[in-house]
This record gives sequence, C-alpha cells and structure tokens, in this order.
Amino acid sequence: MRPSAVAKRRGAIYSDNMGQQDFIAVDWGTTNRRAYRLREGVVIDSMADGLGVTAVSPGGFEQEVAQLRARLGDMPMLLAGMVGSNRGWVDAGYAATPATLEQIAAAMVTPMEGVRIIPGISHVADGRGDVMRGEEVQLLGAMCAGLAPRDALLCQPGTHCKWAWMTDGAIARFVTAMTGEMFALLKNHALIGQEMTGDVSPGDAFADGVRDGARGDVLASLFGVRPASLLGLRARADAASYVSGLLIGADCAAHAAGERVHLLADPTLGAFYASAIAQLGGLAVRIDSQAAFIAGATRLWETMT
Amino acid sequence: MRPSAVAKRRGAIYSDNMGQQDFIAVDWGTTNRRAYRLREGVVIDSMADGLGVTAVSPGGFEQEVAQLRARLGDMPMLLAGMVGSNRGWVDAGYAATPATLEQIAAAMVTPMEGVRIIPGISHVADGRGDVMRGEEVQLLGAMCAGLAPRDALLCQPGTHCKWAWMTDGAIARFVTAMTGEMFALLKNHALIGQEMTGDVSPGDAFADGVRDGARGDVLASLFGVRPASLLGLRARADAASYVSGLLIGADCAAHAAGERVHLLADPTLGAFYASAIAQLGGLAVRIDSQAAFIAGATRLWETMT
Repeated sequence: MRPSAVAKRRGAIYSDNMGQQDFIAVDWGTTNRRAYRLREGVVIDSMADGLGVTAVSPGGFEQEVAQLRARLGDMPMLLAGMVGSNRGWVDAGYAATPATLEQIAAAMVTPMEGVRIIPGISHVADGRGDVMRGEEVQLLGAMCAGLAPRDALLCQPGTHCKWAWMTDGAIARFVTAMTGEMFALLKNHALIGQEMTGDVSPGDAFADGVRDGARGDVLASLFGVRPASLLGLRARADAASYVSGLLIGADCAAHAAGERVHLLADPTLGAFYASAIAQLGGLAVRIDSQAAFIAGATRLWETMT
Repeated sequence: MRPSAVAKRRGAIYSDNMGQQDFIAVDWGTTNRRAYRLREGVVIDSMADGLGVTAVSPGGFEQEVAQLRARLGDMPMLLAGMVGSNRGWVDAGYAATPATLEQIAAAMVTPMEGVRIIPGISHVADGRGDVMRGEEVQLLGAMCAGLAPRDALLCQPGTHCKWAWMTDGAIARFVTAMTGEMFALLKNHALIGQEMTGDVSPGDAFADGVRDGARGDVLASLFGVRPASLLGLRARADAASYVSGLLIGADCAAHAAGERVHLLADPTLGAFYASAIAQLGGLAVRIDSQAAFIAGATRLWETMT
C-alpha cells in the first residue's frame, strides 16, 4: 500500500468526528505496550498495559488492534517495537544504517488495512552486527523535536542499553550492551547474588564500581564482590550498588568516555548513567523519552501521508 | 597442637605397618573431594568422590575422616580447600600475601587430633581484596617440584579462574575472574543462552571471541551474539564457541597479554586457555596439576613435621 493509497483510504474509512488528522501510535514491546492518540504532535489520549507481543497469541493481533481502537478511537495506527519482529505480528525486517526517518517511513509494512508497522534497524561493520526495534522512533524523534542536535551521541539505558551515533540526522551506527540484563542475571543466579540484597543507591560504592568498571577487568571485579565482604573492605549492603556501578561504568567507559551524551531514560536509571558519565569525564544531557517518541511517531506519520 | 606434638603422637597413634612416613592429603572442595595416601612424595593409593563440604552435615566431618581412613589407612591427614572455610569443618582463616609454604604450614589449624587444615590466602591492595582456598597447594607445589620457576605467572582456569604472580617462591599477589561461572550463567539463564546450544570447540568462532574479548567491551559483544545469528554473520551452532572465546579472551587479555603463563588445568580447558594466550601474543606452559598438588602437600607435610 503506497502512502497515497493510505491517505485516500484514511479519508474514507476513518472519518469519525474526532478529527481527520488523528492517528494512534503504539510502542509495542516484548512485555508491555503503550499507545497514544495523537493530533498534530499532541497527545489527545493514551493508555498502557502488559499486553506485550509475548502475551498475544499468533493470529490475535487483529483483535488487539480492534480493542485498542475501541479504547482510543477508530483511526489508523502506527506500530513500533517487537510487534514487527519474527516473534510479533509480522516481521517488518530491518533498514540498514545509515538510516533516516524517511527511509524508515518508506520501508513500513502493512499487516492489515489502516495499520503500518515500522521496520527495525540493523548495523553491520567489520563483521559485527547489531539490531534495534522500537528505539529508532525515540532516537529520530529526539532530533525532529530539537531535543538533540543532528550530530550527537544518544543513549537509551535499560535491559539492553543502546548507544547511537547520529550523523546529519541519520542513525549512522549503534551498539547494544546487555548491561541491565547482566545485573539481573548476577543478582538472581550468580554466587555473588547472595551479596546483592541491598538497594542500589548513588554514593561511594556506586562510584567505586564505576571506577573499577572503567578499568576493563569486569570478570575479576565481579568475583571480588564476595572477598570484599569477607575481608571487611566493603559493607555487604553496598554490594548491589557496587555491581550496578561496575556494569554501568564498564558500559559508559566503552562507549562514551569524555563524551557529551544525550540520555533517553527514566529518571532513576537516567540519574545513575548521568553520574557515571560525569565521573568518566563526560557530560550527560537528559531528554524526555516520551516526548521523543511522540515527535518521532508524528514525523513518521507526516512523512508517510 | 604444635608440630612437635603432632610428630610425637603420630609415632604413637599411627604406627600401622604401612610405613610411618605415610599421610593422607585431601583436596576437599565445595562439591567433591580427592584424597591421596602419600609416601615420600609418591601416591600409594587414592580415591575421589562427590562428598564435597556441602554434602557433609555440620558435625559430620569426624565421621567422614574415619571413613577416609578406613579406605586409605589409619594415618594423619592434611586437608586443603573449602573444608577450611566458614562453610566447612572449621574456618582456618587466611594467610596474607606474600605467602610462602612455610607461613602456610605454620598457620594450619587442628580440628581434631591427627588432622590439620591448611589456611586460605588473602590478597589486599589498593582497597581491593581477593581470596583463595585450596589452590595455594598446587601453586606452591608447582614451584617445589620444579614444574614452574620461583618467579612466574601461574593460571588455574575453571569456574573461578585464578591468576597468581609468584615472586621468589612466594605467592606475591593474585586475582580471580568469574570466567567459568559467567559462561554457565549465560548459557543457562541469559537470553543469548538460546543461541548457545552447540559444543564449544576450537576454531574460527572461538578465535573471533578471543579477539573481541581482548577489545574490552564484553557487555556489547555478548549482546551481539543474537544479532550475529539474525543477520547471518555467524552460524548459530558457533555461538557457544564464540562466547567461550570472548570470556577466556577477556580474562587472558586483562591478566596475561604477551606473558609466559604456567597453566594448571585439565587438558580440555587448558587447551582453550593455551590457544587464547598464544593468540594474544603470550606463551602457555602446561603443568600437571595433580603432580603440583602432591608436591605441595608433601612439602607442607615435611615442613610441618
């Protein structure tokens, strides 16, 4: 379906009285989803729930779309995230780096009339590859909305932390680190998990972790958590903060030492990354990630129609 | 109990007809144990089973000692390993680095008449600490037996890989990396574990892992395992070999790049470490770890009596 065809059908099918420019943008991830009814870049209505793609049975997506429309209005939809993976509704493939918003808009797929799914992005260099699916809307949106310059390093901390180098408004290259997943693995399954029962908080233990993480010997620093308790070098209650600092420090040192980093993160995780970036001689600029998503989805919609 | 008292009692109590110089040396770890009846540095008899310290109930060690003696002969015993930890029979504490064989012999504890437990070793420098318990017998034994020079870097790969720098026959400093444990964590609990179903074998994927491990961005290289399969950059069957190379490469690059390393390891794991060490410009010298343990235990026994 070409953009012109979508525009034509949209006029015919979605002529409810809520405004012809409205559409629904959905950030549909593995374990949850967030949907916005948007009008000219403004959120008219929104909802979020735990119906990520793993909670939807194969063949169940059309019904989920109908329910989202029943909740937010009967209008065209733009879907981003794992809904476009081989574990989601349809595999929307990947656009290769360098990737612009226009290229992504042109590569969308149409699983049913009135619904578009955004492709992911792949990056291959020197025989190494990486992929993203969903994060690209925030990254490109941050730039469209003027929240970050067109040449910048952006970071999206989380289970899998994305670092993206933007050049002239395109996603030029990116790399993903399993920082958050590693913390959970260690806490839940490693021998040192027994030590990691305290809360993660900013402070000396976190900063010590960042320093050690930047030294580049993470496997040994992780083993050192238990001896530090045994030998009375660190309070056991500080172990989780130290490990968090260690992993975030290793992540930031490998990708952003001394750099200006535009952070797309929730306030808590964003504060930890900002602290590590500053400790390693860089500067973190916090960006509202929801505002970036809204801007990216709106620009994709405008580009497409 | 002072050594002189032990010698005296040994004469009185252990005067069986198997030779007065015999003793039993036990490498008693967390999940298994190995016991040797030794006479002047030669193995007269031996046994191994799964009765590590976690399989022995508190208060059950005297009975276990009686059963080992029923099997190998009624003679004095020297115990090394986790049996001397706070999870074992008694906590034998730690001797600080630099640690010689004589210092360890002098710091043994006596949980019951005719039984000595070797202390562990602790190393603290620049506010960071590490511990070992059991490995010190092999390390010092390798030197006693002339299997390694008195100034050398020794490596004991495994769940927790030990790197020990020996100076003039003493353990001067050491560091432990959770290399083997990390591989198991990833295979059994990480998202990339789904990719790690193939056998670990030497070859291109292992070597690629070593190269990437030495680059010092392990958290990103680990995430890259799934994209490599998705994008057709590496056969899925090679993922486990790549991850093994990545972790061993990171371990060797951090501790032994370009160095001559004396390896105390089983043949399989020793071959992987030797390959990584060579790839990173070093040279691995393989040592028989059982011979090192026997030599260390024998010299400790001679020093004590």
